[in-house]
Amino acid sequence: MSDIDDYGDDLFGDAPEPVSVAILGSTGSIGTQALEVVRAHPDRFKVTALTAHSDGDTLLAQAKEFDVPLLGLTAGGMEAPAGTTLVDGSMASAEVAEAAEASVVLNAVVGAAGLQATLATLRAGKTLALANKESLVAAGELVMAKAGPGQIRPVDSEHSALWQLLHSIAPDQVRRALVTGSGGPFRGRTREDLGNVDVQQALAHPVWAMGPKITVDSSTLMNKGLEVIEAHFLFGFTYDEIDVVIHPQGTVHALVETVDGAVFVHAAPPDMRLPIQLALAWPDRLGAPGGKRLDWATLGTLTFEPPDTDTFRCLALAYQAARLGDTYPAVLNAANEVAVGAFLDGRLAYLGIPDVVERVLDAHEPIAPSLEGVLEVDAWARGQASAIIATRGPSRPRIDPGSGATR
Amino acid sequence: MSDIDDYGDDLFGDAPEPVSVAILGSTGSIGTQALEVVRAHPDRFKVTALTAHSDGDTLLAQAKEFDVPLLGLTAGGMEAPAGTTLVDGSMASAEVAEAAEASVVLNAVVGAAGLQATLATLRAGKTLALANKESLVAAGELVMAKAGPGQIRPVDSEHSALWQLLHSIAPDQVRRALVTGSGGPFRGRTREDLGNVDVQQALAHPVWAMGPKITVDSSTLMNKGLEVIEAHFLFGFTYDEIDVVIHPQGTVHALVETVDGAVFVHAAPPDMRLPIQLALAWPDRLGAPGGKRLDWATLGTLTFEPPDTDTFRCLALAYQAARLGDTYPAVLNAANEVAVGAFLDGRLAYLGIPDVVERVLDAHEPIAPSLEGVLEVDAWARGQASAIIATRGPSRPRIDPGSGATR
Repeated sequence: MSDIDDYGDDLFGDAPEPVSVAILGSTGSIGTQALEVVRAHPDRFKVTALTAHSDGDTLLAQAKEFDVPLLGLTAGGMEAPAGTTLVDGSMASAEVAEAAEASVVLNAVVGAAGLQATLATLRAGKTLALANKESLVAAGELVMAKAGPGQIRPVDSEHSALWQLLHSIAPDQVRRALVTGSGGPFRGRTREDLGNVDVQQALAHPVWAMGPKITVDSSTLMNKGLEVIEAHFLFGFTYDEIDVVIHPQGTVHALVETVDGAVFVHAAPPDMRLPIQLALAWPDRLGAPGGKRLDWATLGTLTFEPPDTDTFRCLALAYQAARLGDTYPAVLNAANEVAVGAFLDGRLAYLGIPDVVERVLDAHEPIAPSLEGVLEVDAWARGQASAIIATRGPSRPRIDPGSGATR
Repeated sequence: MSDIDDYGDDLFGDAPEPVSVAILGSTGSIGTQALEVVRAHPDRFKVTALTAHSDGDTLLAQAKEFDVPLLGLTAGGMEAPAGTTLVDGSMASAEVAEAAEASVVLNAVVGAAGLQATLATLRAGKTLALANKESLVAAGELVMAKAGPGQIRPVDSEHSALWQLLHSIAPDQVRRALVTGSGGPFRGRTREDLGNVDVQQALAHPVWAMGPKITVDSSTLMNKGLEVIEAHFLFGFTYDEIDVVIHPQGTVHALVETVDGAVFVHAAPPDMRLPIQLALAWPDRLGAPGGKRLDWATLGTLTFEPPDTDTFRCLALAYQAARLGDTYPAVLNAANEVAVGAFLDGRLAYLGIPDVVERVLDAHEPIAPSLEGVLEVDAWARGQASAIIATRGPSRPRIDPGSGATR
């Protein structure tokens, strides 16, 4: 049935009914890997809706291959193929999430744009396979308040790992959790070394092949910061209970320590298809994607070290915003999205990313995080970040934080 | 309440009724550590019975400290203190296991002598905290046939780890398990290097402080072999599904791989009080023994490598006996006990241990493993091993296996 691995569905006896799946952000890295999972297990999944931002050609090809009746294209400008319904406009993903005949909605939209789709999925009573961590960073209280028990299945590899580990441990027995990070391409470098980093260097991730935004976030360790906030909301950890540990081999994804000193560890080949298929097929486990397995006997060496938050200031900024709470995490995320976008476009130096985020956070007056409040703050933070970047330019040296937060 | 750790029982709200515990083999390494656990959590446990082999003085001191009404001394030759009942003779541990007012019986007897106590505990409907792995090696089918669901709680650190990990994974999702071993004091040595190993060298274990018999077994890797057989019976793995991996740091104790390639890992400080207290208090987790915790951020390096079964032949012999089944594992265990005893007494060279075990296995004619059969085979194997050792002497070079199995 599947030639992508050697442990096919026949392990599971009679095949269950296929799971109906909507994939939001289907042309991105997570979206295309989700479709690989569907392709490898055609009897297990039925794709009922797909959305993309602007890559209409890929979306149409996917729709044709998987015979998908409902499509969304945020950027618009495309005709619906015969026999399909096409939604366009900025709310396309949210509208498709709501309308799709799907029991599971995979939200793989990039950035805070995924928040409305997250809320629409939960409102519609569908299971949310959540790859869009920014939904939780920007509006964690709101999202979790609307989520029923088990309604959210994390897709981030670290959160999928925590989710799997925490299933077997009583909440009052958990002392703390750790998420690992590879440390990215600049692990071991000093701040001085990073002055001239270019886009190509930042996109050369040593372990994971991912989209450009998250790859830059991985290189700055902002991604770990966002993950800490995501873990806080998903699992109820305080920020003192979640640590980050640098583990360059990318084999271990998360750890949970219990009150007696035992530590439960989740390891897996670094392949996003694994958490994706688990979120789609849960509680079933399908075969190993690509037949990939860890060989512990010859694995050699696993190393663990603390993160360098002096060099990788984004992680410290994320903890700071997280602890401040309210709309600070939304500001952190929005400012970071704009700063990373500017870096990718050549409009901001690499070390400008934390500087911009810090200045926007410093200027923020927090409000209670209602949906309207979050959207307003998100827009404000993007405007602030853009203005700072415009006045600063791509190669301007870092402004001393002592000089204040005004622009 | 407890000064042995900084996470006392108050974590658990109202204290539950104390668990009544009988400790068989209370003067040995596991037994004394079990009493440390009781000492650290006096409101959680009540010791109702203790047994020892020959160390009557220590047994009496323990009985006095913990106010224990029922005692057993296998070797006999002691008077019962006022207000206590004393059982003696070779069946003392089994009789105490049956008679004790205990909900949990910790079987920490060393060697196949613990089998009768294991069976008596199960027959009496009590929960068995099993540190005596030889019960399962010698008579795994018998023991498991008499055990109800959840009636056996493993105490070996690797099996406690597997037990904890497997609670959260559906059996049909498990692909294989790995138990780790430190590799012992002779890791990295060649067979030639081990010709002149003396008792002191074999007892210098790099990670665990344990009794002499298990410490020698750790140095030969026979202990891992016995653990593989124990895991087979406890958890139903085939021998192709259980591997041994050498992990010198002693931090990771066991791993379970699921069908999708995920690996669940159990790590903990190497302290036997942790699996002991978990087996006694399950499903509760008490505070970390001695306040010991792993610090992952500064843990540095964990290494994993395959075992060298050419140098450490005992592991290969154990797999061989395990796969042959029937009474072969009982023979393996009995021959090994005699050989290790002879090595500790200076009557057998270190490399003679696998030679003796191999020759007794070769000479064995298997029978169906009834209790009588196992006891008979056990006695036969001990006689064979003793005779081989007597004719061979402490420094006789290894006999080429090609020369046959007759003595």
